[in-house]
Amino acid sequence: MPLPEIIATETLATTRFFKIEALDLRFSNGVERRYERLPAGGAEGVIVVAVNAQNELLLIREYAAGFHEMQLTLPKGLVEAEESLEAAASRELAEEAGFGAKRTELVKRLTLAPGHMGFAINVVFATDLYAHQLQGDEPEPIELVPWPLQRLDELLHSDEFCEARAIAALSLCRPLFSQRLKGAGKPTKRG
Amino acid sequence: MPLPEIIATETLATTRFFKIEALDLRFSNGVERRYERLPAGGAEGVIVVAVNAQNELLLIREYAAGFHEMQLTLPKGLVEAEESLEAAASRELAEEAGFGAKRTELVKRLTLAPGHMGFAINVVFATDLYAHQLQGDEPEPIELVPWPLQRLDELLHSDEFCEARAIAALSLCRPLFSQRLKGAGKPTKRG
Repeated sequence: MPLPEIIATETLATTRFFKIEALDLRFSNGVERRYERLPAGGAEGVIVVAVNAQNELLLIREYAAGFHEMQLTLPKGLVEAEESLEAAASRELAEEAGFGAKRTELVKRLTLAPGHMGFAINVVFATDLYAHQLQGDEPEPIELVPWPLQRLDELLHSDEFCEARAIAALSLCRPLFSQRLKGAGKPTKRG
Repeated sequence: MPLPEIIATETLATTRFFKIEALDLRFSNGVERRYERLPAGGAEGVIVVAVNAQNELLLIREYAAGFHEMQLTLPKGLVEAEESLEAAASRELAEEAGFGAKRTELVKRLTLAPGHMGFAINVVFATDLYAHQLQGDEPEPIELVPWPLQRLDELLHSDEFCEARAIAALSLCRPLFSQRLKGAGKPTKRG
């Protein structure tokens, strides 16, 4: 199916954080429709799957304004100008969980709701961790929740852990976890 | 950590599809911040993991306005007033993929970006399928892409399939797939 033609665009609203845009589209069958979207704002995000030397996932519990609730999730944030995805992941991990990572690996670029939003977030696997706290823009300290990798399935199905991108990120890292758990018990120099 | 106090809210923009709200918050440490969010609009969504009698997943390829691209994903849509999640899943499957489902099972309620949006979408597993096309509000026919369950890992890691909620949905259904694949080869009355 060919892409629809964009006949016109219109900015409907711009706030500090969001922009809403209208797209007037003509589909290949001649049907015309007005769509609305939150267009790509430039910066992509990173979501960090960090595993420590004890084979624990570093989860955080933070305020989720969308639901006015404290929620369990993974460290994440926006990539800054001229920052690599790996550097952004290590910085966000230090700001939100108090650890730096000597090894980072890009796993996959994810979208959230591509029908309505141009936002993408990159899953980064982080290991060889060391204590390293950076000051982010968080209004209050974030609670760190180490979670044993052995209990991954329990986490994925828990009502406490329901953010789709975090569940997707952990599921995509499962082969990497298996490698680590196979190696567990053996002495290693790596964290 | 206690929830911050909501001091004030303000609607910053309302369009046909979106609403942007500002929240003035006071955190328990006294820090005050203005957050912005897309508040819950009332209707939740459903995302449908449908498997046919040939143990194929029913994927669709449709226009994604957020990126102005055709993208591979799962059937999904909003739950209508007084409609159950299971009924919404079966309806969306009929509108977008041309199949009804005699069996539906709620798997998990997911959020997308709970820091910024109050939207939730429910994963529904659908089986015992039968040909049943309903007319939805789609501007053009949607391409149906049957995908063998056997090739699930290839799909999850493919650059063509990158919607976090779809990857999360399939990953959460993996135990249900295993049951089906174990039963494959045996004669069965179920679709």
